Amino acid sequence: MNNITIKSPLDMHLHLRDKEMLKIVAPLSAKSFSAGIIMPNLVPPITTIEDIKNYKQRIIDSIKNEKFEPLMTLFFKNNYTYKFLEEVKEYISAIKLYPSGVTTNSHEGVSNMNIEELRETFEAMSELGIPLCVHGETDGFVMDREAEFVPIYEQFAKNFPNLKIIMEHITTKNSVNLLNCYDNLYATITVQHLFITLDDIAGGMLKPHLFCKPIAKRYEDREALLSVALSGHHKVMFGSDSAPHPTDKKECFGCAAGVFTAPIALMALTSLFDSNNALENLQAFVSDNAQKIYSYKPLDKRIELTKKPFVVPLNYANIVPMFAGEELPWSIVTK
Amino acid sequence: MNNITIKSPLDMHLHLRDKEMLKIVAPLSAKSFSAGIIMPNLVPPITTIEDIKNYKQRIIDSIKNEKFEPLMTLFFKNNYTYKFLEEVKEYISAIKLYPSGVTTNSHEGVSNMNIEELRETFEAMSELGIPLCVHGETDGFVMDREAEFVPIYEQFAKNFPNLKIIMEHITTKNSVNLLNCYDNLYATITVQHLFITLDDIAGGMLKPHLFCKPIAKRYEDREALLSVALSGHHKVMFGSDSAPHPTDKKECFGCAAGVFTAPIALMALTSLFDSNNALENLQAFVSDNAQKIYSYKPLDKRIELTKKPFVVPLNYANIVPMFAGEELPWSIVTK
Repeated sequence: MNNITIKSPLDMHLHLRDKEMLKIVAPLSAKSFSAGIIMPNLVPPITTIEDIKNYKQRIIDSIKNEKFEPLMTLFFKNNYTYKFLEEVKEYISAIKLYPSGVTTNSHEGVSNMNIEELRETFEAMSELGIPLCVHGETDGFVMDREAEFVPIYEQFAKNFPNLKIIMEHITTKNSVNLLNCYDNLYATITVQHLFITLDDIAGGMLKPHLFCKPIAKRYEDREALLSVALSGHHKVMFGSDSAPHPTDKKECFGCAAGVFTAPIALMALTSLFDSNNALENLQAFVSDNAQKIYSYKPLDKRIELTKKPFVVPLNYANIVPMFAGEELPWSIVTK
Repeated sequence: MNNITIKSPLDMHLHLRDKEMLKIVAPLSAKSFSAGIIMPNLVPPITTIEDIKNYKQRIIDSIKNEKFEPLMTLFFKNNYTYKFLEEVKEYISAIKLYPSGVTTNSHEGVSNMNIEELRETFEAMSELGIPLCVHGETDGFVMDREAEFVPIYEQFAKNFPNLKIIMEHITTKNSVNLLNCYDNLYATITVQHLFITLDDIAGGMLKPHLFCKPIAKRYEDREALLSVALSGHHKVMFGSDSAPHPTDKKECFGCAAGVFTAPIALMALTSLFDSNNALENLQAFVSDNAQKIYSYKPLDKRIELTKKPFVVPLNYANIVPMFAGEELPWSIVTK
C-alpha cells in the first residue's frame, strides 16, 4: 500500500502551552489532527471555567482557519465539588491529575495519593462521566517511577469502578499488563515511546531533545507498547504528549522534559505501522479507539499520507522536533 | 577536625586530552595532585613509544613548574608482542583496554573479547608486570553494560592470575562484589559516582554536565561504591576519570560523555569523607592504596585542606565543572 487516508486523527494528549509558543505550535497540530486533548499545566494551571473558556479561545485564535477542535481539560484539584464539576462538565473532556513535581509545571499537583482525600472528587467525576487522565509516576528512582505507580492505579481502578481512568503516556510493560486487569483502565502512548529506549537518550551521546517524563525505558518495555499499539488494542489511544520547549531550554545546563512531535507524529506513526505490516490498525490507534473511549464524535477531517520520504526540518521556529534532519518514509499529502 | 593534609594525592584515571584543552586542564590537575594515570584515548590513540614520549613532553610543558608526574599509558592493541612491551615498559605505568565504541575516542579499541585473541599480549603483560586498565562495558542496554561485563572480568581474572587488572571507574554493586572474588582484580572510583545516581542526571531536569560513561546507576550501586571508598578498601583507588569537554559539546544536540572534576575533586572528596566521618581513610583512597597496587613511589607533595567553604566556579575557561556554582564545605589551602 502506498497511500492511506486517516479519518479524523486525534491526539489525545497534547501540550500547546501559551502566548508565543501557542501561536507557533497550535497550527502545526491543527494541520495533522482533527482534535486534541489539551493539557492544563499552564502557569498558573487551568482550574476554572473562565480559565478554560479563555484558553480555548486563545487556541482557536492561534489555529486560524484550520479545522481542529481543542478538547479542554481541567487541572485536577481534590477540592472540586460535585456542584462545580456539574457546571464545568460541558466545557471539558477530562480532568488531568498530576502528582506534585513529576513533570513540567506540575508543582500545584496532588502531593498525597490518599484515596480518602480524592474520594469526593473521584465520585463526582464517576457520576458525571468525566474521565480522569493521570500522569502515573511516583517520586522514586527515575526508571522505577511508573512501575511504582501501578498499585496506585490499581487502587483507583478498584475503588472507583465507574471512573474512566486513562493512564497517560505509558512507558512500561507493567502498565501495558494493567490494561487487561481492570475494565476501567485505558492508556495513551506517545510517538517517542514506540521508537526509543533509554539507549537512544543516553546510550551514545546524550540527546536532550529525546528527554521527557516519563523517561523512555528498556527494550522489553518498548516491545510491550508496540504490541498493543500495532495491534490496535481497543483500550489504547495515540496521545503525542508533544511538549515544545525552545532550543535554549533544551540544549543547556539543565534541560526541560518534553519531546516535540506534533508536526511529524502522523508521518512517524504511519511509517512505523507500515514497517511492521500493521497499517490496517492505524485508524484504530489514532482515532477510532479514542472516539469510543471518550464517547466523542470528531469533526470530519481526512489526512492523506503517501509513501514518499519526508525530511524532518531541523527546527520549527525555535523548537527542535523529534527526528530533526532525518527522513521519514511516509509524508502527508498537502492539497 | 578542621584541617587535613593529604600526602601525594594521586588521580589514577585522568583525561588530559591535547592541544589547547591540555593547556587548560593539565595545570588544574597538577595543582591538586602529585601524579596521575594519563589515559591514551587521543585521536589517533597512543600506541608507540614515540607517541608516549611526545605526549608526556606536551603534558610537562603544559603544567609548567608544578610538581606533577604524568604516568603514561598505552592504548591496548592485541598485536602488542612481548618484545614491544619489554621495550615500552619503562615508559608506561599501565595499558588501557577499551572495548570498541563504548566511550569517547574508543573506536580503535577491541571489538572481540575472545580470550585467545588477547592471550599473547595479556601473558606478556603478566610476565612483565604491566597492569591492565579496563573500561568494562559491553554494547548492551546502557544501565546493564557494566553488569554484563562481569563474566568478561572473571574470565580475564581466572585465565591470567598474574595480570593485575584494574576495573576502571566502577559504578555498580556487582563490580564492587567482584573485588573480593579475585586476588588480581582492583578498581578505581570517580568523584561523580560517589555523589550521584541516574536521578541526578535525568530525574529532574536533564543535566549534560553529569553525563559520562559508564552512566551513574541506582542508589544501591552508589551505596556499594561508598562502602568500599569510605572504608579505604585496599583494592580501591581514586581515579577521577575527569574528562573535559567544551560547553558547546555538552549543551547541544548530542552531548559528549564526561564529567570535569579535576580542579574540585580533592575538595569534593574531603567534604564527602568528612560528612561520613571517614576522614581517616581518605589518605588510603586518594594515594596509599594506589601506591601499593601500582608499586609506585610518588613525588612528595602535600596538599592541605581546611573546613572553609569553596564556591565552585561556573566554568574553567570553556569547561563547566561538576558542582558549578555550588559550595563545597572544604577548600584547598593555597600557599
